[in-house]
Amino acid sequence: MKDYFKVDEWKIIEEGFDPLYNKIAESVFSIGNGRMGQRANFEEAYSGETLQGNYVAGVYYPDKTRVGWWKNGYPEYFAKVLNAANWIGIDVNIGGEQLDLAKCEILAFRRELNMREGYLKRTFHVRNEQGKEIKVDAIRFCSMVDDECGAIRYTIIPVNFSGDLIITPFIDGDVVNTDANYDEKFWDEVKKDHSNDGAFVQLRTKKTGFGVATAMKFSLIKNESFIEFTSSPVEKEKYIGAEVKLQVKEGEAITLIKYATNVSSQNYPADALEKRAADVLAHISQKGFDTMLAEQAVAWAQKWKHNDIIIEGDAKAQQGIRFNIFQLNQTYTGEDDRLNIGPKGFTGEKYGGSTYWDTEAYCVPFYLATAEQKVARNLLLYRYKQLDKAIANAKLLGFNNGAALYPMVTMDGTECHNEWEITFEEIHRNGAIAFAIYNYTRYTGDESYLTDYGLEVLIAISRFWAQRITWSAQRQQYVMLGVTGPNEYENNVNNNWYTNTIAVWCMQYTLEVIDKVKQDDIVKYNALVSKINFKETVETDKFKDIISKMYFPADEESGVFLQQDGFMDKEQLLVSDLPSSERPINQKWSWDRILRSVFIKQADVLQGIYFFEDRFDEDTIRRNYDFYEPRTVHESSLSPCVHAILAAKLGDVERAYQFYLRTSRLDIDDYNNDTEDGCHITSMAGTWMAVVEGFGGMRVKDDTLSFAPLLPKEWRALSFQIGFRGVLLNLKADKIGVLIKNISEQSIDIMLYNIKYKVDANSELFIKN
Amino acid sequence: MKDYFKVDEWKIIEEGFDPLYNKIAESVFSIGNGRMGQRANFEEAYSGETLQGNYVAGVYYPDKTRVGWWKNGYPEYFAKVLNAANWIGIDVNIGGEQLDLAKCEILAFRRELNMREGYLKRTFHVRNEQGKEIKVDAIRFCSMVDDECGAIRYTIIPVNFSGDLIITPFIDGDVVNTDANYDEKFWDEVKKDHSNDGAFVQLRTKKTGFGVATAMKFSLIKNESFIEFTSSPVEKEKYIGAEVKLQVKEGEAITLIKYATNVSSQNYPADALEKRAADVLAHISQKGFDTMLAEQAVAWAQKWKHNDIIIEGDAKAQQGIRFNIFQLNQTYTGEDDRLNIGPKGFTGEKYGGSTYWDTEAYCVPFYLATAEQKVARNLLLYRYKQLDKAIANAKLLGFNNGAALYPMVTMDGTECHNEWEITFEEIHRNGAIAFAIYNYTRYTGDESYLTDYGLEVLIAISRFWAQRITWSAQRQQYVMLGVTGPNEYENNVNNNWYTNTIAVWCMQYTLEVIDKVKQDDIVKYNALVSKINFKETVETDKFKDIISKMYFPADEESGVFLQQDGFMDKEQLLVSDLPSSERPINQKWSWDRILRSVFIKQADVLQGIYFFEDRFDEDTIRRNYDFYEPRTVHESSLSPCVHAILAAKLGDVERAYQFYLRTSRLDIDDYNNDTEDGCHITSMAGTWMAVVEGFGGMRVKDDTLSFAPLLPKEWRALSFQIGFRGVLLNLKADKIGVLIKNISEQSIDIMLYNIKYKVDANSELFIKN
Repeated sequence: MKDYFKVDEWKIIEEGFDPLYNKIAESVFSIGNGRMGQRANFEEAYSGETLQGNYVAGVYYPDKTRVGWWKNGYPEYFAKVLNAANWIGIDVNIGGEQLDLAKCEILAFRRELNMREGYLKRTFHVRNEQGKEIKVDAIRFCSMVDDECGAIRYTIIPVNFSGDLIITPFIDGDVVNTDANYDEKFWDEVKKDHSNDGAFVQLRTKKTGFGVATAMKFSLIKNESFIEFTSSPVEKEKYIGAEVKLQVKEGEAITLIKYATNVSSQNYPADALEKRAADVLAHISQKGFDTMLAEQAVAWAQKWKHNDIIIEGDAKAQQGIRFNIFQLNQTYTGEDDRLNIGPKGFTGEKYGGSTYWDTEAYCVPFYLATAEQKVARNLLLYRYKQLDKAIANAKLLGFNNGAALYPMVTMDGTECHNEWEITFEEIHRNGAIAFAIYNYTRYTGDESYLTDYGLEVLIAISRFWAQRITWSAQRQQYVMLGVTGPNEYENNVNNNWYTNTIAVWCMQYTLEVIDKVKQDDIVKYNALVSKINFKETVETDKFKDIISKMYFPADEESGVFLQQDGFMDKEQLLVSDLPSSERPINQKWSWDRILRSVFIKQADVLQGIYFFEDRFDEDTIRRNYDFYEPRTVHESSLSPCVHAILAAKLGDVERAYQFYLRTSRLDIDDYNNDTEDGCHITSMAGTWMAVVEGFGGMRVKDDTLSFAPLLPKEWRALSFQIGFRGVLLNLKADKIGVLIKNISEQSIDIMLYNIKYKVDANSELFIKN
Repeated sequence: MKDYFKVDEWKIIEEGFDPLYNKIAESVFSIGNGRMGQRANFEEAYSGETLQGNYVAGVYYPDKTRVGWWKNGYPEYFAKVLNAANWIGIDVNIGGEQLDLAKCEILAFRRELNMREGYLKRTFHVRNEQGKEIKVDAIRFCSMVDDECGAIRYTIIPVNFSGDLIITPFIDGDVVNTDANYDEKFWDEVKKDHSNDGAFVQLRTKKTGFGVATAMKFSLIKNESFIEFTSSPVEKEKYIGAEVKLQVKEGEAITLIKYATNVSSQNYPADALEKRAADVLAHISQKGFDTMLAEQAVAWAQKWKHNDIIIEGDAKAQQGIRFNIFQLNQTYTGEDDRLNIGPKGFTGEKYGGSTYWDTEAYCVPFYLATAEQKVARNLLLYRYKQLDKAIANAKLLGFNNGAALYPMVTMDGTECHNEWEITFEEIHRNGAIAFAIYNYTRYTGDESYLTDYGLEVLIAISRFWAQRITWSAQRQQYVMLGVTGPNEYENNVNNNWYTNTIAVWCMQYTLEVIDKVKQDDIVKYNALVSKINFKETVETDKFKDIISKMYFPADEESGVFLQQDGFMDKEQLLVSDLPSSERPINQKWSWDRILRSVFIKQADVLQGIYFFEDRFDEDTIRRNYDFYEPRTVHESSLSPCVHAILAAKLGDVERAYQFYLRTSRLDIDDYNNDTEDGCHITSMAGTWMAVVEGFGGMRVKDDTLSFAPLLPKEWRALSFQIGFRGVLLNLKADKIGVLIKNISEQSIDIMLYNIKYKVDANSELFIKN
């Protein structure tokens, strides 16, 4: 755990520059707007350790995988988020020497992510090798209003000299992915152009043929006035810059305003991109930097109004949750149902930036409660639109009759993961996708989704389970063999309790939804039956037979559900038996040792208990929590949040608090030594759940929101906003009581500590402790 | 199954040329002498489909592996058998046109592997694009006498023209491995040289730094006389040729004799290689091609005298077994204890040509019975010498106190395999290595090996098992979790019966050998104890505790040993339930489907029953055979032989015969559609076992050889030679009876059909049926 960044409730602050932390800082200070995003690389040249990253949402490259040995059915490609053209670049040359912070003496340096207003600011004061000193003040952001745009204000003050200054703002498409399997470049140049105050580069991805035009327009300000200038083009492959030679005077500020845009062939025909880029740049430069920045602050204020969580009395916890919410909003806005939430968002390349079950299990609840209904709905539609590919994927693995297996990792619906124990066996992801449909309907009450889209997905998933589950003649029960559960520290096990549980739940829920849709709209139901050739009686009989005869492993003696068959054959050690030198076990132990050990990577049985909490009495939950948590090493970023929620539910608020701190400050404090690769975006939604469902005790049951706040002793107060079926609520819990404000024109019934209250429109409810 | 090659008892014959079969033929017609070997590539250029392969034993390259995801403890390198310099090359140019069978009209073509005398012969008659016809007659071999050498006699007859003929014998070191992970070339040039009648290229492998000098010397014959000639050098990178321009007359034969040598820095200092190559070439060219060829025939006659198996009345079976014996002798001669037997020998690159457990489980019995004692002993010493690395390997995986885990695949003792389910979990290989020590001692009676080497290996292996096996508190028994058994169609299973069985056997045998060595040589024993810090009482108590409390899975109902925990939960299908369109399952099914199916790749429980046959009554063997064989798809080349032996033992000689045919003609008939990659060398030893242990019923028990011949109805007679403790026996079984000749100066007691007989020196025993 590192203590590098300053604690501030609304900012992340780096004071002074440590090159060793630069890649971590680049991740943490990332900015984005759901459409584009980037790591906090420097505008000017930097020859030290850096991971360049500019990303355009939805633009990917299917990199040919290379494994030593093939299993039949492995995908040949892994879809990677592409490092796209660098639009922030500003080359600065002082008296013949290129500005490069790796080669200067750094007299002062400060980097600051302003989360309230959504921009990145950097100021520094350096002395170059010639002894010339400059101060730089740089602000940039990805606009939430003009979401194809970014803007930079870069001010240079010569501190102790007058003379030549060359500034070359540029667009550089000659970039690489550091995770490229064949050290190949993924972009080809289509065309480029230069004008006196701008430049344009259009690139096309190899294989996928995505076209992206990146363009800039710039102006220069001296003494608060725009100045005339003449630029000369600097051209290299996929690169174009506009070199401006200036004479500067000691103490006189020169400001470069750089407007940039990324426009993509996903949204416009490729041959219209140049025109579109020019139009966009004309529009924003007309508006001007200051207006854009002001609009950005307004847009973020709007977000925070719905999203913000206030933790009083604990600045670290406060900073942590705001950072998580900020990054989630930067990553996905829900405007485009072709997009999704990669594990690293726009903060790094790792994991390919594709879609995992994280979206359904962790992110959907966040967007349900903090954004318009369509945002979560678009996440669901993303999967609906990929149903054909999920059916094709299942077919590759030997399933038929429209059975669907959603991919473990995907960009466009095709599987692009290739470890057999995950790709083929971590099939519980199908369950999370069904659960998200249930969760969405439960939360929003929008049952039309089931009729129009949901049931079709549910039947396809249930068909998969009905084929994947087999009959054990010896047991006279159904079993599910050869799976990997959420705890990826077990592979190819039989009867993973979680997977068996969610599979049977999927079939039960599918039966319920069939009944509901038949009642609601028999015409649409019949159309679906015929579209997917659903043999209702035969197929539902099969579902029912499995539901009634499924085997669920359990241990009589300890009264817990068994993670899988044979779990009690393991040496029953606890994490507390492990010397710290052996941890994290995934870095210290060989894989076989991890597998045969009792140690658990992330919630598995407990994930099921979290999902289906209502089925279990508190004793059962406690027995399982007390059994599994001490065996859990939490080596997945998705682990602490579920444990925080369960600990809070069981009243162990201090343990919940420890889990919360770990999850909320995972990246700021670089807990897992891997923030340099990018931030853990999807687990940030888990952090939100830890606060709202854990300390806020929020649940939805029978169309009603309920709360049961329970605060750690470190917190004076906790407040958050929740949107629910057209109502915006603000809840504030402190030592005295709970205050719930209804900030809407509609009354609502809620449950607080199991008691029902009505909160009228625009009024509040206060319940003393 | 293909029927491409002609059936002949002593030859493999290809009549006519089918380019589609060329890579298969290149594998099948491979030649070698244990020190070097090569695929049956053409001497002249060939632009069609071919897999170039020249190999020098023990020379390998650690190719950096590239997998999508790393598990802790994976090796970074995979040691590959190197495609070395092409020494056979003879470029032929007729009237300006390069001879290339892919571009000629082929009027006649015949390729023939003479197994009796150990050479490859090829004759063809072609018409080139200009209409010029030539006949070629080419013979080549890798000398068994001069084992660093090969020689070629290449005769060209212009059939319908007189004119220019250019012949360029060459050495080409600019070769690639088709399985290179990074399309990298593995050799660097050190130096090269040309003389009028020869050429020399010295190369060095990257990383490993092996030096290999490949050199040639040639002469030309016209009208049965050597002719004078002038050659001009042709030089390219790592290539050197000697171009000779000739005028030929219609019908007049021109013969090129090419002598070649590979000398390696494994045997001489790198700077002495050039001199050594020149000396060797001088020696063999002095001798002359005809003498070398005659010596080759004598050397092979000597081999066949000890090795041959004669099957009368069944030419296909005869050809099959001879081909297997021939290839085994070409691959490993036992002269050098640094060498071993790669799964493809010198016939292809696949599997890296390294050492697998195949050596101990399948090859040791063959060499024990058919070669001098030192040959099997050298195979054992190979592992002894790598014990330190096996201990280091185990340490990487978390074991200590001198526990050894031999690598799954190796060239020099370090692990170079990287699929976690195999590398880390297919640990039964350790058992086979211990079993080979037992087998060697049982066969040879050489107990000094135990004292000097064997016990040290056995203790290290038992230490591994004692740590790998864990205590199940719930069962109150020892268990072994997370293994892959011989049946690789199951991964990461608990309590594989075979692995549990051989592990416990290892500990039992180690205890026995400890007692024996203590009695035989307490001084050496004490030295060993101190060398390896063996805490005898504590450690043997642990072994004994495990032996007495080990859990072995079994199914009460069917009375069979269970392949692993949970096996009866599978859908109990039989191979006969599988439509042929679904087979082989490893090409038709995804990996997860294979894993959760009941289908077995190769003998697993039955491998254990084969090894420890004496422990089980015939009913038990039959029950297990009847249960497992119908579930076995035999998709490993190592599967049919063990089943043949068990079927023969159980009296089902016709089923045994079917297994035998499949294993013995696997490559000739390209059963598995993969002979183009190379021949299945190690399974060839299994074929030998199928004949001698299966149909011959040979066993060794209590220092006595026993036989119980049982012939398939297709065979008139079966005879084979067996060397046993200084005695050479020839056994011949036919419809009338069994004739055993003792061809040695020493009498021997043998068992025939469970009755004891004495066979005097140089006499014979005939027992009528």
